[in-house]
Amino acid sequence: MNPTRSIVDENKDRFLEELISFLKIPSISADSAYKEEVVRAADWLMAQFNSLKMDKVEKFPTKGHPIVYAEKIVDPSLPTILTYGHYDVQPPDPLDLWHSPPFEPVIKDEKIYARGACDDKGQLYMHLKAIEILQRQGELPCNVKFLIEGEEEIGSDNLEHFVQEHKELLKADIILVSDTSMIANDVPSITVGLRGMSYMEVEVTGPNRDLHSGVYGGSIDNPINILCEMIASLKDENGAITIPGFYDKVEELSKTQREFLAERPFDREAYMNDLEVDDLRGESGYSPLERASIRPTLDVNGIWGGYIGEGAKTVLPSKASAKISMRLVPNQVSSEITDLFTEHFLKLAPSTVKVKVRPHHGGEPAVVSTESLGYQAAAKAMEDSFGKTPIPTREGGSIPIVALFQKELGLDTVLMGFGLDSDAIHSPNEHYGVFNYLKGIETIPYFHRHFAELNKG
Amino acid sequence: MNPTRSIVDENKDRFLEELISFLKIPSISADSAYKEEVVRAADWLMAQFNSLKMDKVEKFPTKGHPIVYAEKIVDPSLPTILTYGHYDVQPPDPLDLWHSPPFEPVIKDEKIYARGACDDKGQLYMHLKAIEILQRQGELPCNVKFLIEGEEEIGSDNLEHFVQEHKELLKADIILVSDTSMIANDVPSITVGLRGMSYMEVEVTGPNRDLHSGVYGGSIDNPINILCEMIASLKDENGAITIPGFYDKVEELSKTQREFLAERPFDREAYMNDLEVDDLRGESGYSPLERASIRPTLDVNGIWGGYIGEGAKTVLPSKASAKISMRLVPNQVSSEITDLFTEHFLKLAPSTVKVKVRPHHGGEPAVVSTESLGYQAAAKAMEDSFGKTPIPTREGGSIPIVALFQKELGLDTVLMGFGLDSDAIHSPNEHYGVFNYLKGIETIPYFHRHFAELNKG
Repeated sequence: MNPTRSIVDENKDRFLEELISFLKIPSISADSAYKEEVVRAADWLMAQFNSLKMDKVEKFPTKGHPIVYAEKIVDPSLPTILTYGHYDVQPPDPLDLWHSPPFEPVIKDEKIYARGACDDKGQLYMHLKAIEILQRQGELPCNVKFLIEGEEEIGSDNLEHFVQEHKELLKADIILVSDTSMIANDVPSITVGLRGMSYMEVEVTGPNRDLHSGVYGGSIDNPINILCEMIASLKDENGAITIPGFYDKVEELSKTQREFLAERPFDREAYMNDLEVDDLRGESGYSPLERASIRPTLDVNGIWGGYIGEGAKTVLPSKASAKISMRLVPNQVSSEITDLFTEHFLKLAPSTVKVKVRPHHGGEPAVVSTESLGYQAAAKAMEDSFGKTPIPTREGGSIPIVALFQKELGLDTVLMGFGLDSDAIHSPNEHYGVFNYLKGIETIPYFHRHFAELNKG
Repeated sequence: MNPTRSIVDENKDRFLEELISFLKIPSISADSAYKEEVVRAADWLMAQFNSLKMDKVEKFPTKGHPIVYAEKIVDPSLPTILTYGHYDVQPPDPLDLWHSPPFEPVIKDEKIYARGACDDKGQLYMHLKAIEILQRQGELPCNVKFLIEGEEEIGSDNLEHFVQEHKELLKADIILVSDTSMIANDVPSITVGLRGMSYMEVEVTGPNRDLHSGVYGGSIDNPINILCEMIASLKDENGAITIPGFYDKVEELSKTQREFLAERPFDREAYMNDLEVDDLRGESGYSPLERASIRPTLDVNGIWGGYIGEGAKTVLPSKASAKISMRLVPNQVSSEITDLFTEHFLKLAPSTVKVKVRPHHGGEPAVVSTESLGYQAAAKAMEDSFGKTPIPTREGGSIPIVALFQKELGLDTVLMGFGLDSDAIHSPNEHYGVFNYLKGIETIPYFHRHFAELNKG
């Protein structure tokens, strides 16, 4: 067994215990009631960096939650790896669907169950343990910098400003992020494409108050019915989005590119069985994987209006609302899509209602080249630890900071993640495999070594 | 001034105080937390009947809330008026929209503000005060029976059984109900038509758990989007309902009948201004009033799914649900419409989701003849108290007991109500005009007298 793997195995229990301490802190960025817990998580992280004997460990306040920064410069002539992660987590609701409390981590069937186990604490903490291992083995092969924020789940609103104000501090040669998934535990992959996002909130108002649906039904347009009609019209019978201009900048992949991506293993039956759906539908002319990665989409994330309690209430409500988000692909621009949606949705409204549209945070799509040194270092690292060449994949999710780092720091991001789609991130019973956690800790030191090597050449 | 009016004026303050005591009791039938308050309201009512020296005052238990019964038989050869009402009220939510607490009645601008002020406590209690007045003036001209239930707002589920089991007790010559509205305070009207109802609850399930909308969006059909599409398809571009067979039994009114109903005053501008809507739309070929009275309708009363809290959450939810009700007109049959809806809605579901449909309580539509003795007595009574002939109107709301009484007791119901559409029943800030309350107390004794007279002839 290789030395890196040995160290991992010898320290496995402690590595897990430390992660569990991290997971116990309910650092829910979206909920102002947990503001102090978020800070507590930042402090915990800083203590871990301190025990790794970083040169610099700082907590930068922002208008929101603090940013944790750490660095160790071994030798200015060495390449510098900037690792990004986030210590905040998604809200855990609905609580009643969790089998164990979201902030009381348990290890069951070789998986760590907790909110944040995979997204992002488990994946983030692997990097700190990787540094510990590299230090045990000698000098760090690269300089290391860590930029860990507390607002990723709520849009990283203060990150852009921080990055703009600290370009010198953040100077590096590559950005490394573990916040994505692999195809399978025996099919390693590296994410080379991410979708962007445009997130809208809409409100349809009809009458100025809730009405009796007998007295007014039929005469007064019902805002819920109208909202449903407006939302339904956003896609056509082929599953394509009908917003004018929406697809104008979408990069169509070539036949060759699509064939290459299609080589990624996909077990349609297992996919459907895992979710207990009887069929898959979507945009005509594209496979399920393509629909979830190289095509833009529109989903209603939440809808509400009228009486939603127990029993029956015959109300014709004053308002109906929805949260609607679109995943974007290169070269769609988030702010442009937001404007196109807003213009179109307002036009859809019949004369009987008033519509408000407001945007939440967005993010740009991103693609990274497999020719880059960062990608090559990651590919070699995974070959070392998995014994197989990883497959480059385009993912459906969004990591807005990738476009931000490209724009502000001129740097590519390597998305070398160790999660699985089945980890149920953003859902109840989120978990992270012990295998995956330890495999990441084993792989990351190889990345540091290979990146140093490739930069010499 | 006529003697009846004098008595009303002399006792006005006490009449209002007594009603206010009644209104203070939060007899919310839909909410099991208020079960004891509902009983307290029944008891209060019984005490009032007792002070009116009824022959019989009883509280009948049911599987749900109790039924209050009272009677005074003056002379078996006299006609008997059975008055129906309900002492339960709608839930008051949303509480934050009330200007004064729903169960702390206030009189402002000559209106009594409280949940139940109009529907139905104010309108019901007028009848008890009318009995008091008749008693002061001599013998009651008719025998009187009172059937007051506590479950009207939740579907009167136990009323049918009670009526079937007590046909002898409930024997009468007419049923009198005040639970509808007039056109205006200076335009008295009597309701001769009511819509029926079919109330459905639907649930669309896609994946077996909430999903990350980046990882799965585009590949997995979103239950909220699907629900919106299914609901949107229930009406066509002309505002007609697309459920096959839905209109088969709808009685089309003749040109003459429609012209007659159209003579009812309708101020379109005032109607729209009151509700602050800029336009009115609905089923093509019908006026706003017709759409709200002689045509069947479909309204979504509530819709929910996904994340509906503060901020943004990128979830592709497992489920989406809605409460959908249809108002019916003669001769549609509630259970048939329920079946047609269910069959159609289940068929609408694409193969990617599973749909559940379950019915809530329904009710049949009803029409009463203006030739009947009951109608004539009511018309004459209103002529006496208003100085004008009332207009017969078809209302949009449902009062399922009207069809029940016809079926089980063979009796017509006279819907002589004194509310106004602007009373905001089922909404926040429900109120009942002092004018209307007192006018009803004045009119009802005339009804009793005229009904006795007409039955002699």
